[in-house]
Amino acid sequence: MRPSGRAPDQMRAISIETGFTRHAEGSALISFGETRVLVTASLEERVPPFLRGKGKGWVTAEYGMLPRATHTRGSREAAKGKQSGRTQEIQRLIGRSLRAVTDLTLLGERQITLDCDVIQADGGTRTAAISGAWVALRLAVDKLIASGDITEDPILAQVGAISCGIHEGNAVLDLDYIEDSNAHADANFVLTGDGRIAEVQATAEGATFDEEALLRLLRLARIGCGEIFAAQRKATGR
Amino acid sequence: MRPSGRAPDQMRAISIETGFTRHAEGSALISFGETRVLVTASLEERVPPFLRGKGKGWVTAEYGMLPRATHTRGSREAAKGKQSGRTQEIQRLIGRSLRAVTDLTLLGERQITLDCDVIQADGGTRTAAISGAWVALRLAVDKLIASGDITEDPILAQVGAISCGIHEGNAVLDLDYIEDSNAHADANFVLTGDGRIAEVQATAEGATFDEEALLRLLRLARIGCGEIFAAQRKATGR
Amino acid sequence: MRPSGRAPDQMRAISIETGFTRHAEGSALISFGETRVLVTASLEERVPPFLRGKGKGWVTAEYGMLPRATHTRGSREAAKGKQSGRTQEIQRLIGRSLRAVTDLTLLGERQITLDCDVIQADGGTRTAAISGAWVALRLAVDKLIASGDITEDPILAQVGAISCGIHEGNAVLDLDYIEDSNAHADANFVLTGDGRIAEVQATAEGATFDEEALLRLLRLARIGCGEIFAAQRKATGR
Amino acid sequence: MRPSGRAPDQMRAISIETGFTRHAEGSALISFGETRVLVTASLEERVPPFLRGKGKGWVTAEYGMLPRATHTRGSREAAKGKQSGRTQEIQRLIGRSLRAVTDLTLLGERQITLDCDVIQADGGTRTAAISGAWVALRLAVDKLIASGDITEDPILAQVGAISCGIHEGNAVLDLDYIEDSNAHADANFVLTGDGRIAEVQATAEGATFDEEALLRLLRLARIGCGEIFAAQRKATGR
Amino acid sequence: MRPSGRAPDQMRAISIETGFTRHAEGSALISFGETRVLVTASLEERVPPFLRGKGKGWVTAEYGMLPRATHTRGSREAAKGKQSGRTQEIQRLIGRSLRAVTDLTLLGERQITLDCDVIQADGGTRTAAISGAWVALRLAVDKLIASGDITEDPILAQVGAISCGIHEGNAVLDLDYIEDSNAHADANFVLTGDGRIAEVQATAEGATFDEEALLRLLRLARIGCGEIFAAQRKATGR
Amino acid sequence: MRPSGRAPDQMRAISIETGFTRHAEGSALISFGETRVLVTASLEERVPPFLRGKGKGWVTAEYGMLPRATHTRGSREAAKGKQSGRTQEIQRLIGRSLRAVTDLTLLGERQITLDCDVIQADGGTRTAAISGAWVALRLAVDKLIASGDITEDPILAQVGAISCGIHEGNAVLDLDYIEDSNAHADANFVLTGDGRIAEVQATAEGATFDEEALLRLLRLARIGCGEIFAAQRKATGR
Repeated sequence: MRPSGRAPDQMRAISIETGFTRHAEGSALISFGETRVLVTASLEERVPPFLRGKGKGWVTAEYGMLPRATHTRGSREAAKGKQSGRTQEIQRLIGRSLRAVTDLTLLGERQITLDCDVIQADGGTRTAAISGAWVALRLAVDKLIASGDITEDPILAQVGAISCGIHEGNAVLDLDYIEDSNAHADANFVLTGDGRIAEVQATAEGATFDEEALLRLLRLARIGCGEIFAAQRKATGR
Repeated sequence: MRPSGRAPDQMRAISIETGFTRHAEGSALISFGETRVLVTASLEERVPPFLRGKGKGWVTAEYGMLPRATHTRGSREAAKGKQSGRTQEIQRLIGRSLRAVTDLTLLGERQITLDCDVIQADGGTRTAAISGAWVALRLAVDKLIASGDITEDPILAQVGAISCGIHEGNAVLDLDYIEDSNAHADANFVLTGDGRIAEVQATAEGATFDEEALLRLLRLARIGCGEIFAAQRKATGR
Repeated sequence: MRPSGRAPDQMRAISIETGFTRHAEGSALISFGETRVLVTASLEERVPPFLRGKGKGWVTAEYGMLPRATHTRGSREAAKGKQSGRTQEIQRLIGRSLRAVTDLTLLGERQITLDCDVIQADGGTRTAAISGAWVALRLAVDKLIASGDITEDPILAQVGAISCGIHEGNAVLDLDYIEDSNAHADANFVLTGDGRIAEVQATAEGATFDEEALLRLLRLARIGCGEIFAAQRKATGR
Repeated sequence: MRPSGRAPDQMRAISIETGFTRHAEGSALISFGETRVLVTASLEERVPPFLRGKGKGWVTAEYGMLPRATHTRGSREAAKGKQSGRTQEIQRLIGRSLRAVTDLTLLGERQITLDCDVIQADGGTRTAAISGAWVALRLAVDKLIASGDITEDPILAQVGAISCGIHEGNAVLDLDYIEDSNAHADANFVLTGDGRIAEVQATAEGATFDEEALLRLLRLARIGCGEIFAAQRKATGR
Repeated sequence: MRPSGRAPDQMRAISIETGFTRHAEGSALISFGETRVLVTASLEERVPPFLRGKGKGWVTAEYGMLPRATHTRGSREAAKGKQSGRTQEIQRLIGRSLRAVTDLTLLGERQITLDCDVIQADGGTRTAAISGAWVALRLAVDKLIASGDITEDPILAQVGAISCGIHEGNAVLDLDYIEDSNAHADANFVLTGDGRIAEVQATAEGATFDEEALLRLLRLARIGCGEIFAAQRKATGR
Repeated sequence: MRPSGRAPDQMRAISIETGFTRHAEGSALISFGETRVLVTASLEERVPPFLRGKGKGWVTAEYGMLPRATHTRGSREAAKGKQSGRTQEIQRLIGRSLRAVTDLTLLGERQITLDCDVIQADGGTRTAAISGAWVALRLAVDKLIASGDITEDPILAQVGAISCGIHEGNAVLDLDYIEDSNAHADANFVLTGDGRIAEVQATAEGATFDEEALLRLLRLARIGCGEIFAAQRKATGR
């Protein structure tokens, strides 16, 4: 049995609230059960130096966690004066995942930054962040299309992400904090709405795994991302 | 006329939602109009080095702003690698304001940290933070009292804060972002529930002011803090 | 009785020595009793990025304390790799205070930086810094007028600052270190030569205060600033 | 055709030179073609704070690149004052990979740090680093066994790593720099000597991929790691 | 002719004012012409970690320059967040120079820190700092002897320092800023009161030099240090 | 007797291997006995801001030590977030030494950076770095001459460096780590192929020294540099 009583292939409740903040070009407050991440999309009419004058845009992400998002208070990265390796790893993953479904040439010379701030953490914050970031990006791009700034949609597909793992010998979907702390293997899958893979990160935590286990986790991820894609479509009216 | 159409002595709508996050010993999402600050109180059974073994506790605060809390995206302090002077000034003010109404000896050798994170900014974030921090602190201390860890209430009074300013020649209460940007003088008052002053910070912005103006602003602050105190009592059931 | 034997409304001896250093466009070594601050004004024919091309100048300040200015040695901020929150708060205050009496348009597109370095500390370093910075600024601007670079005086008034506080129940003027450490309330007033207020920062330290106390402290500050203004005029020959 | 003329499942020449430096408890200079990484294993009889008194050891890694390891000089991280997100991501991966095959309890309360410094880079530096780190770790542990400090071997299996990718539509093994720059998908596999998986990191670079492609890359990785394991055995005399 | 009109072997006027600040255990304001450095000696009854429990003390130094000590304002190291390589080089030199004449065992387990802050710079700041630091150290140690904390004098000799250089083909003593900027070779000598050498740092600046030139510079340094030693004795009453 | 059994004026074996890395415009792996330093010369067709448009080039150096180059592992400077004072001092020395024999005008508006990374340390790393850097610089400049980018050779002379010291009362050449740790005085000489001096850094370590000792050390250095110059000529085919 899972600590939460969920079936092995059962996601936690997903909810996506758009427009949680006013100023951003797109925003979403996404929850996977008790995990809650606020994502905002900020549009700037400039690109990073390495892209200037190339007729292409850029999509990037930053990730943060409020100090008391977690069970015990963590220190504030701004006060410590640097972002942890984990934070940097996650924000690089979020950016790559969104760029995997974006045609940067169609976006034009502009940058969209997805800020993913974890309000409450209970496992799976990076996958919730990616899934919510797609919604915020979608909303921001929809505004660019509505205003005529962009004529052809640069977003090629939906993208969602979910964690799976081997917990007490069983492959389970959408690990919460307790499962995540005890899993023998832990995998994050970033999948696209058309059934393809944008990223796989599977890690042994205490016990290595075999090819069959990897495939079983991928199958669970497909189930989970199906639900995420539905929630994204509902939230964005697509 | 004020840009918002409010009367000179009219506050924006105040709302305080407690329990917005689960893990913290106390939490409050406070809004002054469109300004929204999430405050969590985190209890730790240890004190900073300078207080060890003195039988006294500590109350402190940290302040942050989500990058897109503002009209245009600001850079993330964790990514820049340091907190701005403004951030440090504000978090020092919040900590002092709460300590002004706390008997640290009655609190015992424990520390309560108030994390004040601005979700959305429209002027007055520091005063909303102080006002919400009192609620989160109150809730955390109530738990300590309920559990018997503390026998005598260390919170001596309510504390609230509000900004006032001289805008187009008029003294006005609770400046929003537009007013704040154009005010000739800008004052933050931290007042206590029993009518006393914990802090005054009044600053000329473009034009110096006289004693009469200072007193007029203080009188407006008393009106505003009255409303804040009522909202705090309602939120904490006191 | 005050530890120093002074009357409640009695300042410490003020002295201002101009020309203490050679290279600066203006310099002053100011003493409030044992507190001694060296201020230099440095003129640069450029403005910060946010002001470029706007036809306005800028006045700013930096503050530092020599490691052994204090009773026990403090660590060197350059060695620690960052300025404390206190340092940043003070240097922002000094800059604001001087800008409050400067017409930046008359100054033209140039920047004057006031470096305030505390040689010896015995309470009131920030108020001595502001008072001395006005002298250094005055001298630097006088050179610009003498050379014809500026035709109309951009300095609109004198500005001086003094701390007052409630010490053992009494309102007293110009706190020294011993009083400052024990004061129940502590206020810094920045006043102008024409009787107006540029900044008030009044803080409860252990005990909140009432409106009457605030006004009593302001009245003491007027007495103290009167002496400071006289010393400034003498030092600058005005 | 691959730019190097290699067959799709052909590795570059692997060489492992042990004892390249004297002071380290274990060291290896590993080459995958023109990619060359120096790895040293340093033993310390202490563990990080979070493990103290738990009777367990720790294996960790640090990664660096000499500024001119690359085609054009990169800036020195020590001079910039921080490690890039990429560096941190890689060193975390190396540490996890080695811990996946180490019984930390058998290691006892001691720490082994693997320093992986890239002398020359031509793609695949992280996989060469992991493969060489196993050799350095093996040598350091052999010394502990020889001296009687450890009685039972804490290293449970060999671990090796290799990158594969989709280059011009073909799945290819052991990407060099030119292929890496142009690959549509890029995967790093960390495999163990007994045929299991320690880590998979597969990333779309410009084009997403499907499950079949993932499996094809994994199959190539098994071929490559077979060669790496043989080279490791030869280098360590096992 | 030298720009200052001095003879090749002529020092600038030396002055040493002791007791310039009150709190330090020893202090000296030393001038070599227009170069002026404030040195304080701070005594702490503890030693750095590497010396704990070894029955030996430590003498160390820190060096800083006020931003407007120079002809044009330099940036404040505390604001930049790090000390320059030059600053670190100089403070390491000062510390070594004083330790060269101190018996650390006789000093006992205590640390004396010499803070050398340049109030005004006109060439030779490091040599003035060393020469003044000896005075501050002497005064601090004299107090320890007077109080009976130390019974045998740990200061073995005087130490002084002076710069010499090849300027327009001539060996000259005590370079001022103009000479320093144009010298072909520049040497700093740290000499002891008993005629020995503690440190030589001779550097080609644009033109290498020969052994004869090195010796000529050393001979000038002996002349200069003779004057410094006399001034030190006068200042300390020895 | 020296710990290594060497005669007082006997160098350790010198070896210089050019072309150790491929990408750099020049590279050399230099050994002084067990001390081994990898030097690469990187050419960039740009100069630092202070030289722009002046028709002159720049030669600079950076220095680093692999964490386990030493007997016990040192911490990685990139991980600590700053270069030590020692590192900065050494890299400044290397840069100055090479500029002392380079005509920057003949070099033209380009920069050559010498990266000196210590692979293994056994005393004398800075002198090996300087001696090897000359080789890497020579090779890089030879390419510029061969390609016709430079017509007249900007390298005016060879430059080499060696440490000497007073060890157990004797002046000895080329200190290894054991001698360096126990030397009473330690001097680094940077000499040119035409018999002149580029830099002398002689430091008392525990005992001051006299002029005669300085000259004896210089004479030893001339012997050592003779060998270094021969090895450099052999390595560069000059």
